[in-house]
Amino acid sequence: MSEEEYTYVDFDTLERFMKDVMMGTGVPEEDAKVVADVLITSDKRGIDSHGVGRLMMYYARIKRGQQLSTTKITVIKDNPGTARWDAGNGMGHVVSKKAMQSAIDKAKKNGIGLVVVGNSNHFGIAGYYALMAADQGCIGICGTNARPSIAPTWSVEPMLGTNPLTIALPTDWKFHWCADHATSITQRGKIETYARIGKEAIPGWVIDENGNAATDAPVILKKMLEFKAALTPLGGIGEDLAGYKGYNYATFVEILSACLTESNYLQACLGIVNGEFVPYNLGHFFFAIDINSMIDLEKFKRITGDLLRQLANAKKAPGADHIYIAGEKEYLAYQERKNKGVPISKETQKQFLQMKQELGLDQYDFNFDVKVEKSATPGW
Amino acid sequence: MSEEEYTYVDFDTLERFMKDVMMGTGVPEEDAKVVADVLITSDKRGIDSHGVGRLMMYYARIKRGQQLSTTKITVIKDNPGTARWDAGNGMGHVVSKKAMQSAIDKAKKNGIGLVVVGNSNHFGIAGYYALMAADQGCIGICGTNARPSIAPTWSVEPMLGTNPLTIALPTDWKFHWCADHATSITQRGKIETYARIGKEAIPGWVIDENGNAATDAPVILKKMLEFKAALTPLGGIGEDLAGYKGYNYATFVEILSACLTESNYLQACLGIVNGEFVPYNLGHFFFAIDINSMIDLEKFKRITGDLLRQLANAKKAPGADHIYIAGEKEYLAYQERKNKGVPISKETQKQFLQMKQELGLDQYDFNFDVKVEKSATPGW
Repeated sequence: MSEEEYTYVDFDTLERFMKDVMMGTGVPEEDAKVVADVLITSDKRGIDSHGVGRLMMYYARIKRGQQLSTTKITVIKDNPGTARWDAGNGMGHVVSKKAMQSAIDKAKKNGIGLVVVGNSNHFGIAGYYALMAADQGCIGICGTNARPSIAPTWSVEPMLGTNPLTIALPTDWKFHWCADHATSITQRGKIETYARIGKEAIPGWVIDENGNAATDAPVILKKMLEFKAALTPLGGIGEDLAGYKGYNYATFVEILSACLTESNYLQACLGIVNGEFVPYNLGHFFFAIDINSMIDLEKFKRITGDLLRQLANAKKAPGADHIYIAGEKEYLAYQERKNKGVPISKETQKQFLQMKQELGLDQYDFNFDVKVEKSATPGW
Repeated sequence: MSEEEYTYVDFDTLERFMKDVMMGTGVPEEDAKVVADVLITSDKRGIDSHGVGRLMMYYARIKRGQQLSTTKITVIKDNPGTARWDAGNGMGHVVSKKAMQSAIDKAKKNGIGLVVVGNSNHFGIAGYYALMAADQGCIGICGTNARPSIAPTWSVEPMLGTNPLTIALPTDWKFHWCADHATSITQRGKIETYARIGKEAIPGWVIDENGNAATDAPVILKKMLEFKAALTPLGGIGEDLAGYKGYNYATFVEILSACLTESNYLQACLGIVNGEFVPYNLGHFFFAIDINSMIDLEKFKRITGDLLRQLANAKKAPGADHIYIAGEKEYLAYQERKNKGVPISKETQKQFLQMKQELGLDQYDFNFDVKVEKSATPGW
């Protein structure tokens, strides 16, 4: 990140600011706390694509009425092991935290629980909810669909969301094992970063309308908006490196999110119809598996910890000085950031100042060296 | 497959022969039928790596006492939504079919069921069990660990099994949507085929001990036995194309299979200790989700069918004449094979004749143009 100027802000200030901004748009205090907690958790874990940098996205969507600041949940179906909820086009974070807790409660009674949610919105990092399960002695699995970005194998058209399939579980390590990632190889945010710092995208990340690997980052960003370039599924372009496997997993996440909940899917998730902003109507799913229902939890943590130690101690590739396990890089990011704070880009600084000004949040004195611009509102 | 000589044998003959071979090794008739059904289903679906070509593997393992012909199942834990079983080192197919049925039964009562199985053996295609769930109006998810083959990202050592994460669900198409594949890019069987027909492996499939892509198929096969080459996870070598995502999914399958069931994991799944054959002690997992518990089944099938039609009708990549959905290629293979039969390679023909002779199965007159060789028994 050395190529750009960042200002570091501590966790507490950011979390309070996010809560106040959300409350300023009409989100009830308890709900605003949840949104702020989900977003700051992303920043704490080093996942800059889903933290404070997204605050203005939610702010803008609420302000233009695309999603509601209050989250009225309707339980459509409820069974001992499964449930289906409607989020009333409210805050994705709020309904998702409640849905995962309900899945955990079902798991504690029956061994396993699944709650699916429809008519919802962007929920931040999926890892937040999977980690809730791990905190409570469960294996957590969750995911969501999203705006169309991935082209299916044999196609060049953006159809599927980046559709995370995220898993967390407890071990005897200092942190939970947590695989929190999209079923695409990469995401638009990474290409935006590459464009800013003048790097070429890696061949295989993006397919253009001619079926070739696109690498010119600014061109890719423009073409993606025009649906003339698409992200590739995990496994890349074509069948050589089994891109159809990533395509299938992305499709599974889309089906589980949308088809059990009668939510939007594929290109209907764009949030725009005939140039007008409309609700996203996304779906999510939350599994919790109670480990104790099958094996003593502490024993499981020890066995799993040993398995992960064997992986970490495997023979290293020449040039590799460490074999990471899932969640380790996020743990290391937290160790660094808890003292240093979160890096806030110039672009995000402008957004902060705009929201502060519009909501009259004079108690925040960020000392950012940027000017407020109306244009700071992004076009999401 | 034009490079080799194959003889085609019809489904029924193969299925009867497999049942008789299994019974000849001491597998009870009902169980032998299950094994034969799982294997012929693989051949019917065009998955030659897991069908009749594997018969002698099971035959050899039972004969040398590495796994038992009878399958004594012990229920270790049982809850409304989850259960943990011990397969008593019996037939993987037999316990797995029962475990998935139990998961489905739990799902029909509670909405979702999960059964994990330990102390088990190779179970054939994971798709068989996931499809059982789809047949009964459920979403099926299952997987297993396996012999060490995949190197974790940042490593060159074979540690993880090819660990399938397999999903099936019903739609209004003529066949179930079914993603039945390993979390590695490819598998040893494909490299064996490439070696036979003199093709180079695709760069990215295999990593050698120096961290480079290995492509010489015969050399790869030799080095894999010496643990000097490894398969790569979905996403390939290193981090560029997100190989760590495939590594994480393979690790998840290993944990879910082994750590809830106290089964072997990673390199302990080799089936050999100090040059002696020992039980594999593998673990499996079987999820069933009752669709009707959340949405009317027929409605779900229609919505999901529409989603898949949109994918199939997306803009094609130049040169691609069809966008497949998961399970479609297997359906097409079945359409071809139901008349033509299953292609049996010379190598498998020799194995058939050896088993026929050793078990005195004189009722089978295969008319294969090969000679029986004792050496037909592979070293698995």
